[in-house]
Amino acid sequence: MRDTRCRVVIEHPDPEINAGRFPIKRVPGELVTVEADVFAESHDELACLLLHRRDGEAEWQEARMRPLVNDRWRGEFRVGGPGRYRYTLEAWVDSFHTWARDLVRRVEAGQDVTVDLQIGAELVASAADRAQGDDARALRDAARALTARGGERRVLSPQLAALMARHPDRCSATRYERELEVVVDRERARFSAWYEMFPRSASRVRGRHGTFADVEARLPYVAGMGFDVLYLPPIHPIGRAFRKGPNNAMRSAPDDPGSPWAIGGPEGGHKSVHPELGTLDDFRHLVKAAREHGLEIALDIAFQASPDHPYVREHPEWFRHRPDGTIQYAENPPKKYQDIYPFDFECQEWRSLWVELHSVFEFWIEQGVRAFRVDNPHTKPFAFWEWLIGEVHSRHPDVVLLSEAFTRPRVMERLARVGFNQSYTYFAWRNEAWELRQYLTELTRTEAREYMRPNLWPNTPDILTESLQAGGRAASALRLVLAATLGASYGIYGPAFELVDVRPLRPGREDYLDSEKYQVRTWDLNRPGSLRGLITKVNAIRRAHPALQQDRTLRFLRTDNERLLAYAKTGDDGADAILVVVNLDPVWKQAGWVEVPAQPSAGHPPYRVEDLLNGGRFTWRTDSWNYVELDPANTPAHVLQLSRPLVQEEADAG
Amino acid sequence: MRDTRCRVVIEHPDPEINAGRFPIKRVPGELVTVEADVFAESHDELACLLLHRRDGEAEWQEARMRPLVNDRWRGEFRVGGPGRYRYTLEAWVDSFHTWARDLVRRVEAGQDVTVDLQIGAELVASAADRAQGDDARALRDAARALTARGGERRVLSPQLAALMARHPDRCSATRYERELEVVVDRERARFSAWYEMFPRSASRVRGRHGTFADVEARLPYVAGMGFDVLYLPPIHPIGRAFRKGPNNAMRSAPDDPGSPWAIGGPEGGHKSVHPELGTLDDFRHLVKAAREHGLEIALDIAFQASPDHPYVREHPEWFRHRPDGTIQYAENPPKKYQDIYPFDFECQEWRSLWVELHSVFEFWIEQGVRAFRVDNPHTKPFAFWEWLIGEVHSRHPDVVLLSEAFTRPRVMERLARVGFNQSYTYFAWRNEAWELRQYLTELTRTEAREYMRPNLWPNTPDILTESLQAGGRAASALRLVLAATLGASYGIYGPAFELVDVRPLRPGREDYLDSEKYQVRTWDLNRPGSLRGLITKVNAIRRAHPALQQDRTLRFLRTDNERLLAYAKTGDDGADAILVVVNLDPVWKQAGWVEVPAQPSAGHPPYRVEDLLNGGRFTWRTDSWNYVELDPANTPAHVLQLSRPLVQEEADAG
Repeated sequence: MRDTRCRVVIEHPDPEINAGRFPIKRVPGELVTVEADVFAESHDELACLLLHRRDGEAEWQEARMRPLVNDRWRGEFRVGGPGRYRYTLEAWVDSFHTWARDLVRRVEAGQDVTVDLQIGAELVASAADRAQGDDARALRDAARALTARGGERRVLSPQLAALMARHPDRCSATRYERELEVVVDRERARFSAWYEMFPRSASRVRGRHGTFADVEARLPYVAGMGFDVLYLPPIHPIGRAFRKGPNNAMRSAPDDPGSPWAIGGPEGGHKSVHPELGTLDDFRHLVKAAREHGLEIALDIAFQASPDHPYVREHPEWFRHRPDGTIQYAENPPKKYQDIYPFDFECQEWRSLWVELHSVFEFWIEQGVRAFRVDNPHTKPFAFWEWLIGEVHSRHPDVVLLSEAFTRPRVMERLARVGFNQSYTYFAWRNEAWELRQYLTELTRTEAREYMRPNLWPNTPDILTESLQAGGRAASALRLVLAATLGASYGIYGPAFELVDVRPLRPGREDYLDSEKYQVRTWDLNRPGSLRGLITKVNAIRRAHPALQQDRTLRFLRTDNERLLAYAKTGDDGADAILVVVNLDPVWKQAGWVEVPAQPSAGHPPYRVEDLLNGGRFTWRTDSWNYVELDPANTPAHVLQLSRPLVQEEADAG
Repeated sequence: MRDTRCRVVIEHPDPEINAGRFPIKRVPGELVTVEADVFAESHDELACLLLHRRDGEAEWQEARMRPLVNDRWRGEFRVGGPGRYRYTLEAWVDSFHTWARDLVRRVEAGQDVTVDLQIGAELVASAADRAQGDDARALRDAARALTARGGERRVLSPQLAALMARHPDRCSATRYERELEVVVDRERARFSAWYEMFPRSASRVRGRHGTFADVEARLPYVAGMGFDVLYLPPIHPIGRAFRKGPNNAMRSAPDDPGSPWAIGGPEGGHKSVHPELGTLDDFRHLVKAAREHGLEIALDIAFQASPDHPYVREHPEWFRHRPDGTIQYAENPPKKYQDIYPFDFECQEWRSLWVELHSVFEFWIEQGVRAFRVDNPHTKPFAFWEWLIGEVHSRHPDVVLLSEAFTRPRVMERLARVGFNQSYTYFAWRNEAWELRQYLTELTRTEAREYMRPNLWPNTPDILTESLQAGGRAASALRLVLAATLGASYGIYGPAFELVDVRPLRPGREDYLDSEKYQVRTWDLNRPGSLRGLITKVNAIRRAHPALQQDRTLRFLRTDNERLLAYAKTGDDGADAILVVVNLDPVWKQAGWVEVPAQPSAGHPPYRVEDLLNGGRFTWRTDSWNYVELDPANTPAHVLQLSRPLVQEEADAG
């Protein structure tokens, strides 16, 4: 028998990930909006609190929840600085409120309420016993006044309601059965513009292997475009055995540099720097210089080894051995990747392997790195990542980990749940309006938005999509605007992207021709047709507008032309209304009508609209449907700031 | 660190109610279909089992699950007799299957597979170590054969696959973190036709108080219509204080019988029989006689007391006392129900109250009753019901409890989850096609179908809907067909229903005029216009057709006339296709086209259709849209049996 007097049921809270097994994610200052079904038998009035606290704090903070419809309640709190928080719910039957409601009905029906006022006075007197000082005195006075002549006129006194709300009887309160967690990351986890480049191609001198110093010289260029994160592919010594030649050739010439993902050589492994790039000191200098440009360096963590990696010799127990005595190389049968040995996470010595791999993160964190792009996390066990990220974040809550998993949806989601702060997405392959709407709605309107932060990349060194290959500069421009305005986080792999180098290895393939993965390239950053100007503008707009710094308020708007994709974002508070219309056609001019959700309370049209991307101010005279026309020869999109708020959707509130 | 070698993740199983807090419900022989997301990192092949067992059995039974799409797996098992069952999931990386798949790819690519065959031989040899007897010998032979000349031709041998499947390596298997429960009730919990009648109105002699013997005389009538359950309002002594007169009058004459829900008088309380109905022996005789007619008696359990109930004197501690010393009567301010005292479930002595109320059930169970209609369960705490029903079912798994809660959706659902076997619904107030579709879809296609069994009543002593009042005999007829074919369980309150007594207390009210709740009535069962014939036919069709004995396969069909509601049900296995078209208009003939989901594999039209309700066979010549015409002067509906199966929907499979 459980105590029947705890009558309130609390169930189906939202958010609650895997029955509380995983935390939701936020950044400092963000709202956590919680809903739950809260009800009791009968028709008594209830009170419900959202309890929340930062880990380590002794006391719960309390936020009152309010009923919506159908016994659904909602409350919210704002999180503070990075770290872990908890929330849960508590509810009870509010006897005073119930009594007051009923008493009003009795009085209206002209009933004798003498005894009812005595019942109320008892409730108030008990509250007085729970209170102290002035409150206790005021409650005792109120109890007396209720039973005095005309006491029924005091029932609805706001002062009494406030006093009673401060001293509720919570001894029969129901506490929700689980405490749910929030991980608060720093702002950058939610809002970031990434620029990927190969340091070995950073030299201005054709044919010379780039160095960290060359990357430093490139910093003003990258920072000038408005990026936040400069992400470098692996910077470690590169293996010799089975080294790949240019364009992924099976054989390499002696001076071919090989793939930086074939990590490890005689010069060292995951904690060493490729000598041709410079020294560890040079790297630390780069990290510092980047910071001075408002950029942070992100490293690539690829947990695999070339056959020449010191681990192979020192820790053969971490690799799988074939019956012929050789070590198992990476493969996706019938394809073989003989320049790479995967770690064997099922080996007997998995514990020492985990500890060592964790130490790789700690090593680079010590050099000042706080952002990592993790290569192929979906080929290592989830339990490993959950442990590793837990260890890293417990010491360094400011570390941001981007999951590079292009795989099945459930696997990508799970990686996000076990702790990755950002995730690559299928964005690169979503081209039509309907599929962009569907996919981004899935990312921003389902439970996934609570733990998975999309990072939208139009290209990567491995992904030169057909639409980029075919659509020329206009296609790259429109993909850039989509990525940077649909997603609070996005990234490009440059300079190939902004210089519109869209030659594939061969038709039908997504590999770049003369890919930097296998050879050193030299780029002419001033090549005509560079998208640098567009990128600079778009990043500036992103920085100026809170609406574009989060994904939760994204919603799509109707258009009468499927080549025009229209969507809106607002800031958390509904202000800063940004409306984007992108012409998905890289060749032809497209025109049509866009529906703007009218906000009757904010006044009638006409109202002002400013195009932040192309300049110019317009006046829109209709209340909902407005005309747009976009010529890819001039611009891929309108990025419009509205002079009045958009209609808020219920779902925006979170 | 959790062992990294348990690589498989199992999550989001369905069904799983409140994270496993509540069981799902089934009847003997029914399928439990379980789906879950099951996946590991990487691309290895997995094996997944659905484990299930009856409580008390030591060993899990195992059913193989199969992958659907997107890492979703499905499996099923059939439950046995009434009682409690458990299920959970187990999955592991299937190394042999993965190896065989890859080996085929290698062979197809013309690679040397010598070493790979050795790896496979090791896998087979380990399986031999796990096996015994013939299997062990066969596996050892197979391991040798794989490394012999031409071994690659044996990789896909079905014998080897079967042997390996019998001896998998499950030492790194993942078991789902929770065991989930199934409550198996007897068949009647799913499929039942209820007939409610007031025993005091069972006499054929005008003005004479009916007795249990009169009810016995009525059994052939009720059984003849094809009902399964005969439900009697409370049969206990009735209180005198504040006794209501006819038509709910505040005052009663000395010979007014009062409301049977004002339970308890000098003659006794919840374990006594109202003397005018007969003795406890008479009641037991009725229970037996009913059983001989294929009927079971259901009693009304109303946990409340009249001021004259012995509990009031013997256990004043179970009631709430007002400051003036009186006992708190039932009320819904400003309405007062002074003839009824509710129990105070928040009282200090709640434990003894619970025990006593439980003993009421046990008492009537001892008299042979196995079905109860529980009055207003939504005014007693959920925790009380969960405990009480658990106690009752642990001793008497064959007891069926019908929850009479007409209240908010979350409260009704929770009552079903805490253990009620059937639930009243909002059916009585759903009249239009769109609202019937919406509501029945909610009941039969959402998670609620796993634990909430709707019982559809067109009327009750308290609910004479406006549509029945206004629509005459045709309205009652169409509501009968809807209730009996939309719902595997339904009930009517008669003879008012079949005799089409639809006079309201006053216009705008749902109370019956001269309601049996407050006075003895005498019914002329042979009155012209009785729906007895229609009811008899409909119940006979229900008994003959498994399609109508469950709700999971219900689906609505499109029509081009919103006054025609069309739906189909099939048996569990997709056979026994029943298609119902109801004319929702009680006045006018309605005609239109109904879309029948075509089943191309089952042959082309024409095909035969038989109207089970009205007789007649038709030939339908088109593949999907067919014409129907219904005149309420003749019949409310077609109940059609199709000579070929309907297209199965994916969701039907459960």
